[in-house]
Amino acid sequence: MSDKEKELAGSKVSDFIEDGMILGLGTGSTFYYAIKKIGEMVKNGLKIEAVSTSSSTDTLAQSLNIPLLSIDDVETIDLTIDGADEVDPNFNGIKGGGGALLFEKVVAKSSKKNLWVVNSAKMVDKLGAFPLPIEVVPYALGNVFKKLEARGYNPRIRMRDGEKYLTDSGNNIIDASLGAIEDAYKLEVELNMIPGVVENGLFLDVVDIVIVGKGNGVEVIKKSS
Amino acid sequence: MSDKEKELAGSKVSDFIEDGMILGLGTGSTFYYAIKKIGEMVKNGLKIEAVSTSSSTDTLAQSLNIPLLSIDDVETIDLTIDGADEVDPNFNGIKGGGGALLFEKVVAKSSKKNLWVVNSAKMVDKLGAFPLPIEVVPYALGNVFKKLEARGYNPRIRMRDGEKYLTDSGNNIIDASLGAIEDAYKLEVELNMIPGVVENGLFLDVVDIVIVGKGNGVEVIKKSS
Repeated sequence: MSDKEKELAGSKVSDFIEDGMILGLGTGSTFYYAIKKIGEMVKNGLKIEAVSTSSSTDTLAQSLNIPLLSIDDVETIDLTIDGADEVDPNFNGIKGGGGALLFEKVVAKSSKKNLWVVNSAKMVDKLGAFPLPIEVVPYALGNVFKKLEARGYNPRIRMRDGEKYLTDSGNNIIDASLGAIEDAYKLEVELNMIPGVVENGLFLDVVDIVIVGKGNGVEVIKKSS
Repeated sequence: MSDKEKELAGSKVSDFIEDGMILGLGTGSTFYYAIKKIGEMVKNGLKIEAVSTSSSTDTLAQSLNIPLLSIDDVETIDLTIDGADEVDPNFNGIKGGGGALLFEKVVAKSSKKNLWVVNSAKMVDKLGAFPLPIEVVPYALGNVFKKLEARGYNPRIRMRDGEKYLTDSGNNIIDASLGAIEDAYKLEVELNMIPGVVENGLFLDVVDIVIVGKGNGVEVIKKSS
């Protein structure tokens, strides 16, 4: 989506934020416009506190004077706002293209509500065209890679500047090109049960509200509960 | 078990080691006598190569001239030798009292056969009297702790010298005093699905042979396949 579209969709988060909330703050390029909007609201007097999901969001939140809490200091998070790489009709998604899936999942699963901002291209019929990020401890990287390869999951070790990508936890990421995921629930367990896999980018039964940017418009879709 | 008993049980591993094998080397005080025996065999001409599960075992293996391979360099491990904290009649166990559960599990699950050396006190009817070690990323330590507490799992953050214990992967450990584990298979999945949990110390369907030290004797029990 264009920067204009991202900005429009990101601005829309203001409809869901209230005084006194503890927010979870996601990570990534679409979320950037949402956090800018939150910063603007704080500047205009909104009283919130927030838990961050990455070192890059820490920096951004601090520059916008958004008060940060450690996740250890909160009992529960009222609303977490984040982006996503794919969302299917059942409100399940893939996240982690930006590399922050682990902290994002910890925060998302500790939140009463989750809101994702995406563009319409990310709304898919079936998850899996976007490579699924899998966070792996460096000791087990080759071992897990071979297991994924043997299962036909088309693994690829994520690189950055010629080095293996390192997450905020010092782990590596394998992106698995799965094509189409038939049973995401089964796959989520299967991957997390491989020793050395820390977490994977399947976010199932997590999101409640999706703001979809589409040209000059914004669509808000809510999961029926 | 006394050092004499550990030495006796550890020596018995020689019956299972053959020239040309790739061995997995565990970690811990009982395993110490097994690795000493392997070092003696190497000195006497045994040709093996080995994959280590911890920095302490690296050091020990090097001092005994046991040739080490990275786990990335092996397709499969012929036999992994390790200790255990509890073993039940179904050959399921708890490991990780020594803090190396993650690498131990990666290696164990990549091995054709697993052999554990224990003393008879570690043979239990039901797992869970020994606190179950759970490896957790530091970011999520408080969050996971609260979740475990809410589920009645009696978590305790492992400390060493007044600091939170750090694994070889830079993670923390929570020991959960469960009392008696009714369904270890269900619990293993439940724990690994909590975001921030890297691995847990349940080793199910892993071990094939257990050498049990008992006074001046040694009993070898094998899983019927």
